[in-house]
Amino acid sequence: MWQMRSVSVIGIGETKMGSFPDMTLDDYIRQAGSISIEDACIEKKHIQALYMGNFNSSYLCKQSLIGSLACQVLGLRGIPSVRVEGACASGGLAFRQAYMAVASGMYDCVLVGGVEKMTHRTAEEVTEAIASATKFDEEAMAGVTFPSIFGMIASSYMHEYKFTREALAYIPVQSHANACKNPDAQMHKAIDVEKVLSAKQIASPFTIFDCSLVTDGAAFALLHATDNIPEESRRKHPPIEIIGSGHGGDYVSIAQKRSLTTFDATKLAAQEAYMMAGIKPEAVSLAEVHDCFSITQIINTEDLGFFDPGMGGWAAQDGKTAITGTLPINTSGGLKAKGHPIGATGLSQIFEVITQLRYDAGDRQVKHADIGLAHNLGGTAAVCTVHIFKRRR
Amino acid sequence: MWQMRSVSVIGIGETKMGSFPDMTLDDYIRQAGSISIEDACIEKKHIQALYMGNFNSSYLCKQSLIGSLACQVLGLRGIPSVRVEGACASGGLAFRQAYMAVASGMYDCVLVGGVEKMTHRTAEEVTEAIASATKFDEEAMAGVTFPSIFGMIASSYMHEYKFTREALAYIPVQSHANACKNPDAQMHKAIDVEKVLSAKQIASPFTIFDCSLVTDGAAFALLHATDNIPEESRRKHPPIEIIGSGHGGDYVSIAQKRSLTTFDATKLAAQEAYMMAGIKPEAVSLAEVHDCFSITQIINTEDLGFFDPGMGGWAAQDGKTAITGTLPINTSGGLKAKGHPIGATGLSQIFEVITQLRYDAGDRQVKHADIGLAHNLGGTAAVCTVHIFKRRR
Repeated sequence: MWQMRSVSVIGIGETKMGSFPDMTLDDYIRQAGSISIEDACIEKKHIQALYMGNFNSSYLCKQSLIGSLACQVLGLRGIPSVRVEGACASGGLAFRQAYMAVASGMYDCVLVGGVEKMTHRTAEEVTEAIASATKFDEEAMAGVTFPSIFGMIASSYMHEYKFTREALAYIPVQSHANACKNPDAQMHKAIDVEKVLSAKQIASPFTIFDCSLVTDGAAFALLHATDNIPEESRRKHPPIEIIGSGHGGDYVSIAQKRSLTTFDATKLAAQEAYMMAGIKPEAVSLAEVHDCFSITQIINTEDLGFFDPGMGGWAAQDGKTAITGTLPINTSGGLKAKGHPIGATGLSQIFEVITQLRYDAGDRQVKHADIGLAHNLGGTAAVCTVHIFKRRR
Repeated sequence: MWQMRSVSVIGIGETKMGSFPDMTLDDYIRQAGSISIEDACIEKKHIQALYMGNFNSSYLCKQSLIGSLACQVLGLRGIPSVRVEGACASGGLAFRQAYMAVASGMYDCVLVGGVEKMTHRTAEEVTEAIASATKFDEEAMAGVTFPSIFGMIASSYMHEYKFTREALAYIPVQSHANACKNPDAQMHKAIDVEKVLSAKQIASPFTIFDCSLVTDGAAFALLHATDNIPEESRRKHPPIEIIGSGHGGDYVSIAQKRSLTTFDATKLAAQEAYMMAGIKPEAVSLAEVHDCFSITQIINTEDLGFFDPGMGGWAAQDGKTAITGTLPINTSGGLKAKGHPIGATGLSQIFEVITQLRYDAGDRQVKHADIGLAHNLGGTAAVCTVHIFKRRR
């Protein structure tokens, strides 16, 4: 393979996640972007390009061209920018493009962010905006929504592996527990299995607690070629190297999937990322895994090679995926409890992994955080990115 | 600079441009994508990634996730894909990302396409969709539309350079003449200066003939690492090498521009592309230049270094930019007369340049087509890509 250049994350920033009616799209970008630049100890003039992940502000905020908007808001005049979209994987995809832009040798220093503002629209409008990530003419037009799609996936999984509705509830219980320790999280409320089971039904077998949140927020990361990181930046934080990057795909319609209980897009992205990193899944210390619904986290942890098929759910119940477990998953609280600002989600996952690898995660710090993984999924498991990070000693 | 790998275009395809009510978004993608794959003499299994340029199908067709959609439509199962957006530069930006993905060494063979379907929506809906590429809360909300923005730019230019309304009309006259020779063009109707001047007023000083078209269509290109192009592909067409790639940016609001009569984004993209190619503007044999409005083409040809400031308009009147001129511009008919399927426009420009460099342009073939340039602009000159191509001998 052609030689690619080593790339590291030298700065991160995110907003609090939730609903803040006075905050504009500009405000979210300004806040998270500025934090990441300051965190990196880099002057703005060193930033050479900007990648922005955004799902559907074109509809939700009537604002496209989010790359150029972010340049203006952040005072990055003359900087080339681009918006990247892949539904809920928009953030991870923007990160992947930014990574390649530095790894290719095109740039030394690239800013990448994600943003979404959704909570100002009605539930019907948000549902319509999100349904644009189905195959619209065949699925959304027939009344199919994402809770119903992933509900079918959950039912298939429960049938195939004799998994139980009760055990599924341990996923959100754990996410809510972790979010209580994350100051940026939207939810700060512990729940128990009983509360999950007795909550409002959304789409069988899901109650409201199996579903991720509707969230506003932004998250950013600053990438730099590892071989010439400025000294001030290096002194402030240990650079966290991107040792693996993977991008997988699948068809968009659920009717075209080869399986409902495993996601090819995740497997392909993981395979590429592990191969580049030269590691096996067992080497991973902690992971942020896409959990748009409780079942999604379970299947993804299996497809990432962390657990055998059919065992991902029990692993949560057994405490293996808790902060104190053998493989902590979604220490941030995940999409379920930290929140799911769609275009920002992939970057917010990376924010958490970097925070852990810097040993800056406070009450939710994972012991022995050596290698971290961030997994972001879009649509009906139609597109996926996996990134693997390592603290340089 | 880090060594980047040489990349060539080995396949191209586009649909006819216009309004075809029976064609779906899928149909446009299927048609243009299939032509490009066949043109390259490549089996689908060799394609490793897909980049899609699309501006606003999220609103216009209620369909996001265009990358995964295109994989499904084209039968590219398991292929990683991503959608790229930068308003009218979405296609050029997708091409730039695809170029970097191969130049970085990540992939050998990448498909890149652009698509837009707009003509099924009302004029009001199309105007609203396009206005999302202004700074919406400050501009579109105040009633500002793109014809009014570029009308202001035209008025400033005419004032600063004592340029005339009549001379401006030579731009669309030439574009319509060229489009008559392009079977894919939306317009096949020659016009004259009198017709331009006496047509319906849109936004002073523009009549309808100064404005580009509302168009449906798709265009694709297949990129390959130059050093290992398959033999069958090489035998079918001479590979056309990408010798320069540039990406420039500026703020999104017109109130934030440093000048109304020159576009920083174009200058920055051109500078980067010329430097990479190691050529000066005089070396360019022909160019497709973004002409959303007549004035845009004039200013861009100056910012690309083809003509001195204030001289770009007279160059058209003098016939210098005609197919038989010293520097043919928009031999395809341009956005004005070939059409402007927003997300596909950048790719359709590249389709024309490659066609010319292959000497396949029939009646509109430029003599001595050695080096071609494609220039794509988004928003109020907020983002720009420039690509320079050379036929390998």
